[in-house]
Amino acid sequence: MTQIATPPKAGAAARAGRFFDQHRETLERAVRAIRERAYWSPYPEVPSGSIYGETANDDGREAFEARLGRPFDLDQPGPGGEVGDERSPFGFDLGIRYPRTEVETAIAALTAALPAWRAAGAEARAGVCLEILDRLNKRSFEMGYAVMHTTGQPFVMAFQAGGPHAQDRGLEAVAYAWSEMTRHADHVTWEKPQGKRDPIRLAKSYRVVPRGLALVIGCNTFPNWNSYPGLFASLVTGNPVLVKPSRRSVLPLALTVSVAREVLADARFDPNVVMLAAEAEDERLASDLAVRPEIRLVDFTGSTAFGEWLERNATQAGVYTEKAAVNSIVIDSTDDFDAMAGNIAFSLSLYSGQMCTAPQNLLVPRDGILVGSVRWSLRQVEEGIAGAIDKLLADPARAVEVTGAIVNDQVRERVERAPSLGRVILASRSIDHPQFPDATVRTPMIVGLDAADETVYMREEFGPVSFVVATDSTAHSIDILRRTARDRGAITAAVYSTDEDILSRTNEAAAEAGVALSCNLIGNIWVNQSAAFSDFHATGANPAANACLTDPAFVAGRFRIVESRRPAPPAEDSTPVRSS
Amino acid sequence: MTQIATPPKAGAAARAGRFFDQHRETLERAVRAIRERAYWSPYPEVPSGSIYGETANDDGREAFEARLGRPFDLDQPGPGGEVGDERSPFGFDLGIRYPRTEVETAIAALTAALPAWRAAGAEARAGVCLEILDRLNKRSFEMGYAVMHTTGQPFVMAFQAGGPHAQDRGLEAVAYAWSEMTRHADHVTWEKPQGKRDPIRLAKSYRVVPRGLALVIGCNTFPNWNSYPGLFASLVTGNPVLVKPSRRSVLPLALTVSVAREVLADARFDPNVVMLAAEAEDERLASDLAVRPEIRLVDFTGSTAFGEWLERNATQAGVYTEKAAVNSIVIDSTDDFDAMAGNIAFSLSLYSGQMCTAPQNLLVPRDGILVGSVRWSLRQVEEGIAGAIDKLLADPARAVEVTGAIVNDQVRERVERAPSLGRVILASRSIDHPQFPDATVRTPMIVGLDAADETVYMREEFGPVSFVVATDSTAHSIDILRRTARDRGAITAAVYSTDEDILSRTNEAAAEAGVALSCNLIGNIWVNQSAAFSDFHATGANPAANACLTDPAFVAGRFRIVESRRPAPPAEDSTPVRSS
Repeated sequence: MTQIATPPKAGAAARAGRFFDQHRETLERAVRAIRERAYWSPYPEVPSGSIYGETANDDGREAFEARLGRPFDLDQPGPGGEVGDERSPFGFDLGIRYPRTEVETAIAALTAALPAWRAAGAEARAGVCLEILDRLNKRSFEMGYAVMHTTGQPFVMAFQAGGPHAQDRGLEAVAYAWSEMTRHADHVTWEKPQGKRDPIRLAKSYRVVPRGLALVIGCNTFPNWNSYPGLFASLVTGNPVLVKPSRRSVLPLALTVSVAREVLADARFDPNVVMLAAEAEDERLASDLAVRPEIRLVDFTGSTAFGEWLERNATQAGVYTEKAAVNSIVIDSTDDFDAMAGNIAFSLSLYSGQMCTAPQNLLVPRDGILVGSVRWSLRQVEEGIAGAIDKLLADPARAVEVTGAIVNDQVRERVERAPSLGRVILASRSIDHPQFPDATVRTPMIVGLDAADETVYMREEFGPVSFVVATDSTAHSIDILRRTARDRGAITAAVYSTDEDILSRTNEAAAEAGVALSCNLIGNIWVNQSAAFSDFHATGANPAANACLTDPAFVAGRFRIVESRRPAPPAEDSTPVRSS
Repeated sequence: MTQIATPPKAGAAARAGRFFDQHRETLERAVRAIRERAYWSPYPEVPSGSIYGETANDDGREAFEARLGRPFDLDQPGPGGEVGDERSPFGFDLGIRYPRTEVETAIAALTAALPAWRAAGAEARAGVCLEILDRLNKRSFEMGYAVMHTTGQPFVMAFQAGGPHAQDRGLEAVAYAWSEMTRHADHVTWEKPQGKRDPIRLAKSYRVVPRGLALVIGCNTFPNWNSYPGLFASLVTGNPVLVKPSRRSVLPLALTVSVAREVLADARFDPNVVMLAAEAEDERLASDLAVRPEIRLVDFTGSTAFGEWLERNATQAGVYTEKAAVNSIVIDSTDDFDAMAGNIAFSLSLYSGQMCTAPQNLLVPRDGILVGSVRWSLRQVEEGIAGAIDKLLADPARAVEVTGAIVNDQVRERVERAPSLGRVILASRSIDHPQFPDATVRTPMIVGLDAADETVYMREEFGPVSFVVATDSTAHSIDILRRTARDRGAITAAVYSTDEDILSRTNEAAAEAGVALSCNLIGNIWVNQSAAFSDFHATGANPAANACLTDPAFVAGRFRIVESRRPAPPAEDSTPVRSS
């Protein structure tokens, strides 16, 4: 269904077609990957000079530093003026100024860009999207520094989550949308038998049309990773996209929009197919934009309060939200306590738990667990996990490469008041960052609670605060996991058990509560990791998110199919050929 | 993704599996049909004894008549008591009493039925759905009489629209949902390279889980055709379904629910997977049910006011609506006026225009149109179409087999006040039905308006009222078609022109307004016809409907995918075999 309806700007289809041809194999491989779900990625995740070029790291850092203290030029229509007050969680002001956005101007520019983008067809649009992703990949080091200094992620994580892993998620969305847009014939001759009379023959054609304009609302901690699926899914299906970043994480999405506009211009499309909506502190662009009748798609990652507001108020649009999550681990038994504790310690410490996938509640029976054939007390389990964290983060220079920095004051304040929530099992320490003396770095804090303290642990404490919840039994733990995910929302769940029956029952509870489950993870794989093309991130089946990154439901509603039919001439007479 | 999680009632999977095997070819053929879009149907549309059995008609009528004046037994949980006050538009009370429904009881019964239905897996559920459709097909004559005497459709149309064509639409929804549920691997070993170290290996499995409970809200005129897509799409994806019929068209959906419950019981499932919610005149079950937290899917056909209320208020659910439509025909030119006028006359007369697909506004330039090389005046065009209707409906016995009866008093009142709307081109006549003297039968009325009279023609006049709107030019006509569809909603659009450029421009306008277009239809195919597996009914791209029957978006949001992953053992050592 890629009919070109009205010609886009001269040459656009041809240039976009070349992009498509260049990246066709990547797209086809991605379509296979989403079906098969095996490991695959076209964008190398290792920030290595041997892959990205020996000078890539230095070049990327210099490109990032060259942007500091300057206006960021996007050359997009707007009212004039500048906004921007980003500060690196590592302790310095970025001082980058972005063009101000005015709602009417932006809507008008996006609306004007729509017809040619719609008419270009799925192939041309896919070509442009794949070229954007390819160019973003080549700038992964620059992006890594941009993500690091807006989110507080340690560099390697920022490189991966803001670079190749986000690009993977963008490509995954393009692959899903491509599959859905091309799953039907784009034309057919429909021939209905009429008994002895001539059949009715109609020539039918089917065209993919976009919903309208799309709004992507980014978050502070994962500006790219959480935005790329919606951005690319809306874009490839024909909807011009307005990207509204978090005021604290503008740069990664400004870079993304800049690359997108550059590719659009190179392909002779109106660059206003993708625009940035940076805002000043006193503006409320997201809520103003989200209820505009022209906005027909909204992708959001952020607070439950605003996510639910969008779901209830932006009813003119398809709304895809990811909100707060309260993630649980059921700890029942293990044959290798150190491996389990080490794995959990890393999950709690990574980016100081500032992840929607980080575990919060460790559910442990109050009479302890079996380690091999030996019963360990609750206290021993607590101390074991606390000890694993202390060991992991003993060396400050290594620790900060795990924890990164605290993203904002709200998270810092949350850690500071956490001791009042219960019995402190492990206190959060401040670490002096060897390179960034003004960075706020915090190790995880663990608080001990009883299963009865639901009002404390059944809400999200975003950041390096987790709870060991003493339960009556593993059955009780499983029930808490189920109810927490079902009633409060969860994006991940985990279980450690040597008992297949326990694993199976946790699996049923997780399925019922609509949360993905990781069983007995040890080694270099953690519950907070979610790999594109294989792991479905969130499910849309509990309050943590009304959508999944990425499944067919995430893309199918972003376009419609419009049919045209007319009488077809009678089939040509095909006199049977008699063989000799 | 058909893992059986917890065992359903003993034997259920096995019995449903037999249903699946019996109907597997039909399903596979349907999956191919929705991709290829060519003509196909497994359910014969001709109400012929040679197809359905020589006594099928008599048996069906007798089965229908045997239900009159009696309680309809569904054996479903409820508060006791009966409701029902259906009256045939052909002039007699049905006197059928249905079990009363109480919201809490129904929600509890559906909720109790959910776990085993979810656990059964896609294959078992598809088997049950296909068996339901097959048994419904065998009862198409009985259903035809039920639809005829609730909607006022003439018998052949009632047979088709309530029988085979509705069954086609149900099967189409099953095929789409099946495609989406089975498009991913249901398990995989994910193996991520780790350079020189051993790869990380995870065994992952993916499970389809339903959204929750589904509500289907039926309409008066097409109780089955408009309900089956939502009913079967929700059912096959694992959501128990509560069917809330229009108070005036209960019987067709009661029969449907009855057959569904019979098949569910035969397959050893809880029959409460499908329930009927019939209501008394003073009840508001639809709005009470639609906002219940347990209800996660709502399918609705009916008024714009209630449809928009659902979209704005049932935000806890996926809401799929079809509302009012204002359909236009652009009349520009023709080489065969009689063929064109005959085709339009039939479209206006069929079921007295009581169809969401019936044309309303005939847009004709005020200086007339070209017929061959001769210019006909507007008055000649009006008279030609009016004459074609007179000719079509001259014989009362034949006329009533086209028009059927007026479905309810609101439509009758609308016809009666229509002369006040403008200049009467063709007055509506009453026809005495040869078999049903108390039936209200009306021929189409055509009112002449000017393009300036937008307040009159840019709203839906559901029933046998249409307008000839005098426009400045065909370009003006095309603009009115576009604006009407875009701003007020349209489900069909048509154009008659001998000029390829006009056809192309109308095509662009229709695509922009998101409405399907029929060009130059003559003979036995009409703009109001929409064939499953080929025609997308409505688009979801204009205010007439927020969904399409059926596209991927209609089914993809009815389930979620929940993943489970755990470490996989190392791959078995595969020492290369050296050849010779």
